[in-house]
Amino acid sequence: MDYTYAPGRNHLFVPGPVNIPEQVLRAMNRNNEDYRSPAIPALTKTLLEDVKKIFKTTSGTPFLFPTTGTGAWESALTNTLSPGDRIVSFIIGQFSLLWVDQQKRLGFNVDVVESEWGRGADLDALASKLAADAAHTIKAVCIVHNETATGVTNNLATVRKILDEYQHPALLLVDGVSSICALDFRMDEWGVDVALTGSQKALSLPTGLGIVCASPKAIDASKTAKSLRVFFDWKDYLKFYQLGTYWPYTPSIQLLYGLKAALDLIFEEGLENVIARHNRLANATRLAVDAWGLKNCTQKAEWFSDTVTAVVVPSNIDSSEIVRRGWKRYNLSLGLGLNKVAGKVFRIGHLGNLNDLQLLGCLAGVEMVLKDVGYPVKLGSGVAAACAYLQNNIPMIPSRI
Amino acid sequence: MDYTYAPGRNHLFVPGPVNIPEQVLRAMNRNNEDYRSPAIPALTKTLLEDVKKIFKTTSGTPFLFPTTGTGAWESALTNTLSPGDRIVSFIIGQFSLLWVDQQKRLGFNVDVVESEWGRGADLDALASKLAADAAHTIKAVCIVHNETATGVTNNLATVRKILDEYQHPALLLVDGVSSICALDFRMDEWGVDVALTGSQKALSLPTGLGIVCASPKAIDASKTAKSLRVFFDWKDYLKFYQLGTYWPYTPSIQLLYGLKAALDLIFEEGLENVIARHNRLANATRLAVDAWGLKNCTQKAEWFSDTVTAVVVPSNIDSSEIVRRGWKRYNLSLGLGLNKVAGKVFRIGHLGNLNDLQLLGCLAGVEMVLKDVGYPVKLGSGVAAACAYLQNNIPMIPSRI
Amino acid sequence: MDYTYAPGRNHLFVPGPVNIPEQVLRAMNRNNEDYRSPAIPALTKTLLEDVKKIFKTTSGTPFLFPTTGTGAWESALTNTLSPGDRIVSFIIGQFSLLWVDQQKRLGFNVDVVESEWGRGADLDALASKLAADAAHTIKAVCIVHNETATGVTNNLATVRKILDEYQHPALLLVDGVSSICALDFRMDEWGVDVALTGSQKALSLPTGLGIVCASPKAIDASKTAKSLRVFFDWKDYLKFYQLGTYWPYTPSIQLLYGLKAALDLIFEEGLENVIARHNRLANATRLAVDAWGLKNCTQKAEWFSDTVTAVVVPSNIDSSEIVRRGWKRYNLSLGLGLNKVAGKVFRIGHLGNLNDLQLLGCLAGVEMVLKDVGYPVKLGSGVAAACAYLQNNIPMIPSRI
Amino acid sequence: MDYTYAPGRNHLFVPGPVNIPEQVLRAMNRNNEDYRSPAIPALTKTLLEDVKKIFKTTSGTPFLFPTTGTGAWESALTNTLSPGDRIVSFIIGQFSLLWVDQQKRLGFNVDVVESEWGRGADLDALASKLAADAAHTIKAVCIVHNETATGVTNNLATVRKILDEYQHPALLLVDGVSSICALDFRMDEWGVDVALTGSQKALSLPTGLGIVCASPKAIDASKTAKSLRVFFDWKDYLKFYQLGTYWPYTPSIQLLYGLKAALDLIFEEGLENVIARHNRLANATRLAVDAWGLKNCTQKAEWFSDTVTAVVVPSNIDSSEIVRRGWKRYNLSLGLGLNKVAGKVFRIGHLGNLNDLQLLGCLAGVEMVLKDVGYPVKLGSGVAAACAYLQNNIPMIPSRI
Repeated sequence: MDYTYAPGRNHLFVPGPVNIPEQVLRAMNRNNEDYRSPAIPALTKTLLEDVKKIFKTTSGTPFLFPTTGTGAWESALTNTLSPGDRIVSFIIGQFSLLWVDQQKRLGFNVDVVESEWGRGADLDALASKLAADAAHTIKAVCIVHNETATGVTNNLATVRKILDEYQHPALLLVDGVSSICALDFRMDEWGVDVALTGSQKALSLPTGLGIVCASPKAIDASKTAKSLRVFFDWKDYLKFYQLGTYWPYTPSIQLLYGLKAALDLIFEEGLENVIARHNRLANATRLAVDAWGLKNCTQKAEWFSDTVTAVVVPSNIDSSEIVRRGWKRYNLSLGLGLNKVAGKVFRIGHLGNLNDLQLLGCLAGVEMVLKDVGYPVKLGSGVAAACAYLQNNIPMIPSRI
Repeated sequence: MDYTYAPGRNHLFVPGPVNIPEQVLRAMNRNNEDYRSPAIPALTKTLLEDVKKIFKTTSGTPFLFPTTGTGAWESALTNTLSPGDRIVSFIIGQFSLLWVDQQKRLGFNVDVVESEWGRGADLDALASKLAADAAHTIKAVCIVHNETATGVTNNLATVRKILDEYQHPALLLVDGVSSICALDFRMDEWGVDVALTGSQKALSLPTGLGIVCASPKAIDASKTAKSLRVFFDWKDYLKFYQLGTYWPYTPSIQLLYGLKAALDLIFEEGLENVIARHNRLANATRLAVDAWGLKNCTQKAEWFSDTVTAVVVPSNIDSSEIVRRGWKRYNLSLGLGLNKVAGKVFRIGHLGNLNDLQLLGCLAGVEMVLKDVGYPVKLGSGVAAACAYLQNNIPMIPSRI
Repeated sequence: MDYTYAPGRNHLFVPGPVNIPEQVLRAMNRNNEDYRSPAIPALTKTLLEDVKKIFKTTSGTPFLFPTTGTGAWESALTNTLSPGDRIVSFIIGQFSLLWVDQQKRLGFNVDVVESEWGRGADLDALASKLAADAAHTIKAVCIVHNETATGVTNNLATVRKILDEYQHPALLLVDGVSSICALDFRMDEWGVDVALTGSQKALSLPTGLGIVCASPKAIDASKTAKSLRVFFDWKDYLKFYQLGTYWPYTPSIQLLYGLKAALDLIFEEGLENVIARHNRLANATRLAVDAWGLKNCTQKAEWFSDTVTAVVVPSNIDSSEIVRRGWKRYNLSLGLGLNKVAGKVFRIGHLGNLNDLQLLGCLAGVEMVLKDVGYPVKLGSGVAAACAYLQNNIPMIPSRI
Repeated sequence: MDYTYAPGRNHLFVPGPVNIPEQVLRAMNRNNEDYRSPAIPALTKTLLEDVKKIFKTTSGTPFLFPTTGTGAWESALTNTLSPGDRIVSFIIGQFSLLWVDQQKRLGFNVDVVESEWGRGADLDALASKLAADAAHTIKAVCIVHNETATGVTNNLATVRKILDEYQHPALLLVDGVSSICALDFRMDEWGVDVALTGSQKALSLPTGLGIVCASPKAIDASKTAKSLRVFFDWKDYLKFYQLGTYWPYTPSIQLLYGLKAALDLIFEEGLENVIARHNRLANATRLAVDAWGLKNCTQKAEWFSDTVTAVVVPSNIDSSEIVRRGWKRYNLSLGLGLNKVAGKVFRIGHLGNLNDLQLLGCLAGVEMVLKDVGYPVKLGSGVAAACAYLQNNIPMIPSRI
């Protein structure tokens, strides 16, 4: 017996790990296999082809590391850069901050551009730095596509435009942990050199795969990058890709089959439809927040995230109490405010394999929690606002028409 | 791939089969076993003891038939009655009607008491019949505790009172398919002679177990009952109970382990808490129906069902379209109106392993469907009414305090 | 924790329930669904078509009863016969005996032809009875295709030949519980009127489906058969087949998806290959029994069963002790001797989703158990004999060549 | 459908990943959870305590990295050593070779002691080096407890004895990937400073956890070790242990529950009984190899591995063909010969949740494969030898007596 038993489903609305669809749970419900038999390389080959589609790349090379997003970060950095290399990196919230921390600890010379939490990356600052860098001392620009802590999405197309404007050869490394497979992401079109995500986010799998995709330029860079690396080294993978056996060490059989099932679901729904669904659920959430009279932590609409909404609570309320109460009374799991916004925001994750009525159940729950903690919310107001929008925008389910 | 794929969870609100909790799915995720090994009798022994608790009986004898509710009905009748026996039976909706149909086809002399659909069994008529039956020609009173088609709960305590008043020896046979484990049911206190339920209802298992419980008086009756029966014969079970091997034919190993897990969850929550939760969810649903300006099919509060609410739609709307649209657009499964109320009502099942936010998601979905089909519902109104009630009444989750 | 825990896999070699392949476990690992949605009728339609293939019938009508083999028997009898009808039935072991017991209890006039256990049905006696029945008082011939208790397979082609020889119109009702999907069975070619099996046998599913297939002649007979029946009545099913909703009462969602997966595996392997595999495993088992110096309970090769081998132990040994010890020391589940052969035989089931090395592990286990109980077996002898045969006869796995 | 379908169970006898018991599959069959809720820290706390038992340490600090054994190696090295540090390391087969390769690539000054493949680590060489190192330039001794490629177990007690003899302060780092939980391993008694294993080996889980345990001395060393590390840094874990939240980044919920179930099974059987079972299965395997007239790759009995046996094939046979054929004809997965012994040995893994009859099925399969490839094995000979031993040595299953 799980010691925290509560009747009914847990309402999982943290911005990852997210709900796993039954089809994926089924696919992973299996014994181990010999990963050196012909079956696993054949499966892997298919996965590597399929996974490129979610990055929107044809020229990239994907790697399926048995790790988390943090490990995927490390792989992106150590394979393309050498100690002491200058990189420009943005802090706009907890996860970009943690990545910068990693960058520093790995010995890079990090040129940090910080923004107020709730704002996007300061791309003007980027432009200035690139403009001033005729010598091309900047080896890479590192940016989080979607900052999970504040619900801020950076505009990668603009980043590319700026790089192009200054004809700057810096690598563009992108953390797409809470974006890829949910937000519009275009690796090739935007000239992203390394992009990465984690299995427990929009792919709706368990934690355990750090999926990294490298452009040809990044692969080239990896040949000379001097950062020490073994576990996260692309070279070993590339060697085994050549051999057709694919794995320098043991993969998780279950996650490979799970990834196959997860990708199949995404392709069946259609990647563009998946992205549209995330936009719809996010719009509904934002309308509810407005109706409650609360503020979105994200300061401008251009940065609104379609995978997570950070909601600012009045100063007399501790947002941690909201999260605690959600879990203790309603079996509702919301995201805590982290670091600078601890106690000040709570987060609603609306990413992954999720639908409208699940979200509405969550919104109703949030309303009751708000009331519980003394915020004078009008019960039903957020749900009403969300429904008014959704009822006009939900498409028929194609397989059921 | 399931051909009717839709993203996110299916919102299953038919009044059975209901949502299966993960703990139960896990318990059933197993290979077959030899049911003649010592393990299965030991498990069965435990189950037979545990299952008595959900009937609130200490003197009853339970049977776990590999069948459905329809088979459980047949077992109740053929083991206690002989062809031609007079029985009093009530039609108040589709399921009581089907049971009466079975009673007739099995050769009993059925004295049918019919009520308008939406009303409870006519117990005055019962009283009259018993009063007039000094000769005790009535061998059994058959009654459905909760009519799933109309959301009507009959008052079994009153039935017993009437039988006692006339000191009538008729057996009391009760269909508890959509009541037991969800509504207050007291086999011993109410002198029920045979009670039965199905695994896919409040127990939240897959279909496949017809659980029948017989009083000592019913067991006695089975010794002389002349109805032909083999598969459903209690005698074979009782013989194998004596032998300590328990099974006259092969049981479903998976359902036995599943039943163990399901009962463990119920006992962990506490049966009285489970019943209170059903009452709470039902109250919330009824408040939403009121807020929508719609009528409950159940005509009086005394008959309100805590496991299913049948909602009457305006005459210009086809309730089947509501169900169809729920499924095709919102991945919401509602219950159809059946037979006399086809097209006139749709049903919200709120039974089994379910919680408040799940229900609120459903209610929000119903609101959007109502709007879709042209009913001028105020979006959010039902959810608001339900939340106002629930926020005052949901207890903290004991394991998480 | 299961209280009978032992490390490693249980070696399940009872002649049912048998091992469930992972693919089927996966398919069943799912929540309930509304069986009135369009998805379940669509699935059912496919299943009813597919299931006819394992009966080798194009004209038959299949029924998927939520029941066991015992229920399927009852359905076959009560739908085609009237009380008092004369039927010829054969007792050759425990399961045919139980069926005859059921036939008697259901009120038929059973003309029993008994054989020594270990011999096939006495078809000469059948011929005599048919010859003597110019008046066609015999309404049905009931025969078990494969007697699971003794490992005896009856020759159904011969039964048909005899019926044809006497141009006798009796219905031919066949228990195929431990044969269909494993032994050569030809419903149309052999003029079988009702055939039936159970899901936990060669289909390798959990218990819970009694699969019955009726010829047009049997369907005709059902229109006039006067045996009382409701749960097992084909009429209700046929009515719902017409309506396209298929189910007169709630099916097990999980078993339907499981059946789909099980049939897919059988068709992928090829039904003829499945049958050939059963023959190969059975030959290997019989060679091992010979090598051990033990006798097959089946008295002549013409009756050898390819799904179960009943092994006769020397009179100084109690076969129950062999079964007990297999389970208690080796995690090996063998079949007990039943009734007349209790203590005298133990049974090795070799049916369902099973392969050669699994069987060899079992045979090695049996050798050690035999030694344990004092039988002077030469360890390795049975495995050696089986391997010598198998190594010459196992085909390459087509999907892996 | 898996494209390499074959009927029956796959016989998985590679030395990892190994068979997952059903209890563990069940425990992992679950949705994601918020890892920041109180439930996951509470579970983690229990796991960290329990996992120390399999290392036989009370003073060690365990880390559950979401990685593989290769990552666990990296964690052991980078947390305790600085670039340029001299370490003594042994190459005795492919996995020790790969570890040395990693050590070199991570910038350590590796003093390699190589042995012929099939022999244990040259501990005399170790003694010499330590004797010559009065200046204590050797910072660590790195040794693989059980070399999976050749089936060689090194004597760690002797390693400790030598270190003590020279009162040498070098850290002792042990790869216990294919030993811990299967072979006798005593972290505290043998003064091991870092020990590590992977979830897919003796713990019988999916791949995905690299379990590392550090002695107080290793923890001290980590405070000054200058190797760059972030993902694998103990410091981050220790910080979160202090906070009581335990996780610096997202763990796999499923593997945590799976680990709980796996440890529960091990403790239920008893760790000493688990170790004894491995010894028994290994003895049986070695007896079979002898009976086949083949040589164990391990050159002396003192080095025999109880988790994997590498079998040398005659020079006219390609051992890869044996592995290929096992998979293609018998659904048997054996281990390939790697690197220097490629084509020369095949490997039988006999570790994890496995029992005697499973092994005997494998041995019978190997015999047939050997015959297939032209080796004149006497069929049944290996099984006979193994059975003769096992029948005398298998204990009764405690839970079933």
